[in-house]
Amino acid sequence: MKTEKSLDFGERSYQMIVRAKLSRGGTGSFSNFASAVSKAGGDHLDIDVVQSTGDYILRDFTIAARDPKHGEVIVQELKKLADVEIVNVSDVVFLKHLGGKIAIVPTSEVKTRVDLGQVYTPEVARVCEAIAADPDKSFNLTIRGKMVAVISDGSRVLALGNIGPLAALPVMEGKAMLFQRFAGVNAFPICLDTQDTDEIVNAILAIAPNFGAINLEDIASPRCYEVEKRLKEKLSIPVFHDDQHGTAIVVGAAAINAAKYIKKPLSRLKVTAIGTGAAGMACIKMLMDLGVKDIIAFNKDGAVYKGAPNLTETETWLADNSNAGIYKGSYKDALKGRDMFLGLSVGDILTGDDLKCMNKKAIVFALANPRAEVPPETVPANVAVLATGSSRYPNQVNNALAFPGIFKGALEARVNQITEEMCIEAARAIAGLIKTRELAADYIIPTVFDSRVATTVAEAVKSTAAKSGLNRRALK
Amino acid sequence: MKTEKSLDFGERSYQMIVRAKLSRGGTGSFSNFASAVSKAGGDHLDIDVVQSTGDYILRDFTIAARDPKHGEVIVQELKKLADVEIVNVSDVVFLKHLGGKIAIVPTSEVKTRVDLGQVYTPEVARVCEAIAADPDKSFNLTIRGKMVAVISDGSRVLALGNIGPLAALPVMEGKAMLFQRFAGVNAFPICLDTQDTDEIVNAILAIAPNFGAINLEDIASPRCYEVEKRLKEKLSIPVFHDDQHGTAIVVGAAAINAAKYIKKPLSRLKVTAIGTGAAGMACIKMLMDLGVKDIIAFNKDGAVYKGAPNLTETETWLADNSNAGIYKGSYKDALKGRDMFLGLSVGDILTGDDLKCMNKKAIVFALANPRAEVPPETVPANVAVLATGSSRYPNQVNNALAFPGIFKGALEARVNQITEEMCIEAARAIAGLIKTRELAADYIIPTVFDSRVATTVAEAVKSTAAKSGLNRRALK
Repeated sequence: MKTEKSLDFGERSYQMIVRAKLSRGGTGSFSNFASAVSKAGGDHLDIDVVQSTGDYILRDFTIAARDPKHGEVIVQELKKLADVEIVNVSDVVFLKHLGGKIAIVPTSEVKTRVDLGQVYTPEVARVCEAIAADPDKSFNLTIRGKMVAVISDGSRVLALGNIGPLAALPVMEGKAMLFQRFAGVNAFPICLDTQDTDEIVNAILAIAPNFGAINLEDIASPRCYEVEKRLKEKLSIPVFHDDQHGTAIVVGAAAINAAKYIKKPLSRLKVTAIGTGAAGMACIKMLMDLGVKDIIAFNKDGAVYKGAPNLTETETWLADNSNAGIYKGSYKDALKGRDMFLGLSVGDILTGDDLKCMNKKAIVFALANPRAEVPPETVPANVAVLATGSSRYPNQVNNALAFPGIFKGALEARVNQITEEMCIEAARAIAGLIKTRELAADYIIPTVFDSRVATTVAEAVKSTAAKSGLNRRALK
Repeated sequence: MKTEKSLDFGERSYQMIVRAKLSRGGTGSFSNFASAVSKAGGDHLDIDVVQSTGDYILRDFTIAARDPKHGEVIVQELKKLADVEIVNVSDVVFLKHLGGKIAIVPTSEVKTRVDLGQVYTPEVARVCEAIAADPDKSFNLTIRGKMVAVISDGSRVLALGNIGPLAALPVMEGKAMLFQRFAGVNAFPICLDTQDTDEIVNAILAIAPNFGAINLEDIASPRCYEVEKRLKEKLSIPVFHDDQHGTAIVVGAAAINAAKYIKKPLSRLKVTAIGTGAAGMACIKMLMDLGVKDIIAFNKDGAVYKGAPNLTETETWLADNSNAGIYKGSYKDALKGRDMFLGLSVGDILTGDDLKCMNKKAIVFALANPRAEVPPETVPANVAVLATGSSRYPNQVNNALAFPGIFKGALEARVNQITEEMCIEAARAIAGLIKTRELAADYIIPTVFDSRVATTVAEAVKSTAAKSGLNRRALK
C-alpha cells in the first residue's frame, strides 16, 4: 500500500522504518497512526505486517521525513498515541548500508569440476603464462581492463572534512555502485590508511596492476595535486581526480548551456568566482578552456591578482592568467555588472540581495555543499539560471554525470591518460544532450538517470582519443 | 546436442571451440567431422550453428581434449578433411577469462533519486559520521565486514614460479570467484607491483581499512613468513597465508581420515616428509598438532636433523622438534618401515618401486603439482591410501576445502586472528564430514562441491573462537 506523497520529492530522502505494536479493539488503529504521521509533517510510504495476534498487530511503517531531526519529532508524536507501542525505529539509510553496498560475484558459473579446473588450477596456468609472455594481454584476460580503483585518504570527504579512511569508505562504495549502475564499469573502493603523500603514492603504485584506471577522490589539496602528478608520471593507466576534473566537466556542460540559454557567448561572459581549492581551480580552468576570458577569482583572503600575497602555486598561475584589471576589492563588490557567479567555497556567504548588482539574465552556480553560497530561495529576479550542488533544486551539478562515462570511455579506448581535451569534449557532449528547444532556466543539465549520458560521454572520450592517437586498443 | 563422453572426466578440462565451414552436398558432413574428432581421441561436447547458406553451414564445435597439444593434434586431423574449412580455434579457458572473472555489483538498486541520495550524497554522510564516531561500525556498515583481500606479489605462482603480479592476477581472481561460490564471501584480488618485503607490508597496511581479513597467496618463502609475521603484529584483522595454513588444514583432514581408514592412531604413525618450504613446514606442523610424533623431514640438501648445515630458521625449529633419532641418510632409504609419506616438493622424485619398502597399508600424500612426487599409476599394493594435488585422481588435497569456510567463520565471528587451534578444529571438521562407514581408500576427503564443507569449517572456526574468547561479535 502506498499513499500519496505530501512532502516534495527532493525533501523526503530521510526515511525511517517505525515498528509499532497497535492494540486491537483500542484506539491504536492504523488510521489514527497514519493521521498522526501526517499531522507531524511526515509521509508514510509503506506498511508491512510483522506479526498479528488477537491482542495486537505488529507493523513496520516506512515513514519519510525532511531530515533525522524531523524524524525524531514524528516519533515523539507517535509515542503519545494511546494503545500504540513504538518497538523500534530504524534509519533506512543505515539499513541500506548493512553488509556494505557492493558485492563481488563470479562472471561465469562454477558448477562442475571442469568449470573449476578452467577458472582456477590447473588450466588457469595457461592464461598466466600468456600474460607473462605479453603483459598487455592482462587488459583482456583479467579484471583490470574493466576495473577502476576509487581511492581516497579520507582527508576531505564531502563537507565532513578529514574523517579518515574507514569513515570515508561508504562514500567510495557508493561511488563504486554508481560506476556499475550508470556505466557498467567495475570499481573497487580503496581507502588508504595514510595521509602521507609518499605513502599514498607508493601504495597506489603497488596496487596498480589490478586496475585499468585510477579515480582519486576526496583528497585534500594541495596533496591531491602532488599525488595526481606523481602517479601520472609513473603509471601508464589514466589517473583522474574526480573532485577536480569531474566537477569541471559538469560545470563546463552547465556553463555551455546556461550561456546558450541567456544567448551570450562564453567568450563575452564576465565571471566572478569564489573558491580556488582543487574543484574551484579546475572549474575556472574549464571555463577558460571553453572560451571565457574575463574571470576574477577569490580565495578566502580576497581577490587573486598578480602580486597578491600568499598565493599557492596554482593561484599564482591563475593570477597570471585572469583578473587582467588587477581587481583587489571585495568579492561582493566584484559581482557588480558581472554575468556569472561561480561558487565552490562555503555556504551562506552571500544573500539574494548581494546578487542584485549582477547583470540582467545572470548565471549563478552556487555549488557549495550541503548549503549553497547563497540561499537558493532568495535569488533575485535578475538571475536567469541557478545551479547548485543539491538534488533539492533544479540544475544539480552532479559528478555522476561525468565520471561513469569518462572512465567507461577511457577503459574502452584503453588510453593511458584522460586529457584536458577529452574533458572539454565530454562537457560539450553532456551539454549537447539537451536540445536548444528543450533548454530552460531549470533544465540546463540532464538528469543522472538519463540513460544516454554515460554512453555519450564515453563516445566523446573515445573519439577524442582516436583523433589524438591515444586509443591504444585501436592501434592493435 | 551432447554426445557421450569418451575421455575420463578429469581428463577433459581442455576444451576448444572449433569454428568450421562444412560444404553442403560434399563430404563435409557433420558425421564425418564428428568421427574425425573421435578418431583423434577428442570428445565433441556441443554444437552450434553460426550461419547456414545453400553452399555451406558454419558450425561451432566444442571439443574436449586431454591438453592443448592434444587439441592441436585433433585440429590437424580436422584440417585434412575434404570440404571442411577450419575458420577459427578458440581455447575455452581463454574465452572464460575475457573481461575478467569477477564483477562488482551494487547490493541494492539505485532506481530513483531517493535511492541515489541514500547510498551516496547527501544521506551517506550520516553513515560516515557514525563510523567516524565509532570505527568498529565499519564492520557492519561497509563492505569490510564481508570482504577478504587475496594478495600476492606474484613471486611463486602455482608451479609457474616468479611470474610477477599481472600474470598472477588470473589465479587471484579465480580464488575470489571461489570465495563467493563456496562461502558467499566477497574477495578482491590484489597483485602487488613489488617483491620487496617492506613495500609489500606497507602497501597492505595502507589498504587494510577496506578489508575484514587478508589472504596472502603465492608469495615465495622465506618472504611469506616475514610478511605474515609483520602484518599480524600490526593489524587487528586476520592474516592468513593460504599456501601454508590452508594446505595444512586439508592435509590434516586427509591424514585424520587416512589414519582412521588404516586403523592406526596418528600418534603411532611414522612419517617421512619431503619438502620444507612454506606449505611443507605448515603441513608437518599440522601433523604434529594432530598428534604425530615420529617425523623425518628432508629439504633439497637432505635430512633435517639437529646440527645439520645450512638450515633456515624454520628448519632449525623443525630439527629441534623432529627426527629424534638424528637420521642423516637418503630420503629413499628413509621410507623403509614407515607408515606415511608426505611430499610437498617436486614431481617425479620417486618411483612406485621406491615405496615398496614402506609398511603395509601405507599412506602416500604426493602433493607436488602439476606432477606428483611419484607417478600415481605406479604406486605399489602396500600403499593403502594415495592422495595427490590433482583433480585427476581420487583424494585431491584442494585448498578450496578450507579457505572459503575459514574466512567465512573468521569474518562472521569477527576474530582478529586465525589461530592454530582454529586450523586444527577446521581439519577435524572437514575429516568429520565423512562418516566412518563411508570411508574408503579413494574417499578420505570430501569434494569441494560438497555444500556442507564451508559452513562446517566456518562453524568450527566460530566455536573455537567462542571458546577462546576471540569472538568479538559475541562480546558486543
